[in-house]
Amino acid sequence: MKYEEYTIEGRNAVIEAFRAGKPIDKLYVLDGCQDGPVRTIVREAKKHDTILQFVTKERLDQLSSTGKHQGVLAQAAAYEYASVDDILKRAEEKGEPPFLILLDGIEDPHNLGAILRTANLCGAHGIIIPKRRAVGLTAVVAKTSCGAINYTPVAKVTNLKKTMDELKKQGIWFVCADMDGTTMYDLDLSGPIGLVIGSEGDGVSRLVRENCDMIASIPMKGDIDSLNASVAAGVLAYEIVRQRG
Amino acid sequence: MKYEEYTIEGRNAVIEAFRAGKPIDKLYVLDGCQDGPVRTIVREAKKHDTILQFVTKERLDQLSSTGKHQGVLAQAAAYEYASVDDILKRAEEKGEPPFLILLDGIEDPHNLGAILRTANLCGAHGIIIPKRRAVGLTAVVAKTSCGAINYTPVAKVTNLKKTMDELKKQGIWFVCADMDGTTMYDLDLSGPIGLVIGSEGDGVSRLVRENCDMIASIPMKGDIDSLNASVAAGVLAYEIVRQRG
Repeated sequence: MKYEEYTIEGRNAVIEAFRAGKPIDKLYVLDGCQDGPVRTIVREAKKHDTILQFVTKERLDQLSSTGKHQGVLAQAAAYEYASVDDILKRAEEKGEPPFLILLDGIEDPHNLGAILRTANLCGAHGIIIPKRRAVGLTAVVAKTSCGAINYTPVAKVTNLKKTMDELKKQGIWFVCADMDGTTMYDLDLSGPIGLVIGSEGDGVSRLVRENCDMIASIPMKGDIDSLNASVAAGVLAYEIVRQRG
Repeated sequence: MKYEEYTIEGRNAVIEAFRAGKPIDKLYVLDGCQDGPVRTIVREAKKHDTILQFVTKERLDQLSSTGKHQGVLAQAAAYEYASVDDILKRAEEKGEPPFLILLDGIEDPHNLGAILRTANLCGAHGIIIPKRRAVGLTAVVAKTSCGAINYTPVAKVTNLKKTMDELKKQGIWFVCADMDGTTMYDLDLSGPIGLVIGSEGDGVSRLVRENCDMIASIPMKGDIDSLNASVAAGVLAYEIVRQRG
């Protein structure tokens, strides 16, 4: 297990963190802020015996990493990465064939946050990211995930290809998104699956791509090269949902 | 027709703008930058008789609105909004039933940029946005659209509901995304259609929602409330593509 310090910023993100039972060290609230959502947050903080401090806007801005605290900012002990086994166990407990999302070098925290939301809602059991050349679970990711970071486990691995090799032994098939693949509607994506999404600039790396069992392409009728990475992940994840349904 | 001034920043965005025939007033390139993509851009600039200036990094940073110019920044005369009729004409010319995307108050420029990419690639004929409480075609939108802004027309209207009423008379059906709707797979989305996407915080406004013929829901199996707006737009747009295909 690895740890990274972080702050939770913004009303929804803070409420979700309390409700998901995250250990909050300290809660900062803008002095004089008394509207409904803020009162709910203060109530949650008292219920959890969290240290509560009313501060000025300047102090909040100073503590904030995203600049979008909306008057509330929580300091959490740490974010915990899951292990790949934790993710597989989740699938087993639910009695579902594993559905993993592997990110081969996503660098934009907004994309990782959006993909966490998608993973949570499409029923994926977890996300696997590489240690190098990829964004981790930062405050911006936590905020843009709108709470999904509290529910959907993220594992960080040294070598994505090696992890895929191990997962293949357990019967998981891998599909990556690339332009010259088979149209996604014509593939069978209903079994135990790992969906591989490439980086924003370069797509899926050669080694990882060659290690995939299937290459899926999203129909493209336009003039530009590619969808935004988190949109592509969403479209493919929901094709898997449709086929599983 | 309305105009907004803007700069085009980043290598891909500038190359795409030249290739799409956008009128570029002036091109700024980082002094000493001579790699392949930059040489391509300089060649394009000479071909188009564009004023070319080599400048320092400080000057580029100062001109940049996104902070991500990658050594190239173009000043364009203006971005031109299309009219709703322009968009309908595009569908007619292609001999396709109209496929429009209406954004009911998208405020994040990254979301609008990502939705422009999706609209371009899924074969939508254009995007309609409201004048108020929504982001327009800014430099950040242009950059995050990765060139799609040059191909996919965007119309700006005073009143989204009134525009929908006029489009209904021309046989277009409207579907919006909301949680308590019918699962998207069970709706017929294959005809002339306007897909309505709500704002990041509040979703689709009441008046617009009541004016829709269908309410589609994306299957949600998780713990949080909603997908990122541009991901939801992508998932629904590609369900329309699948049904039309």
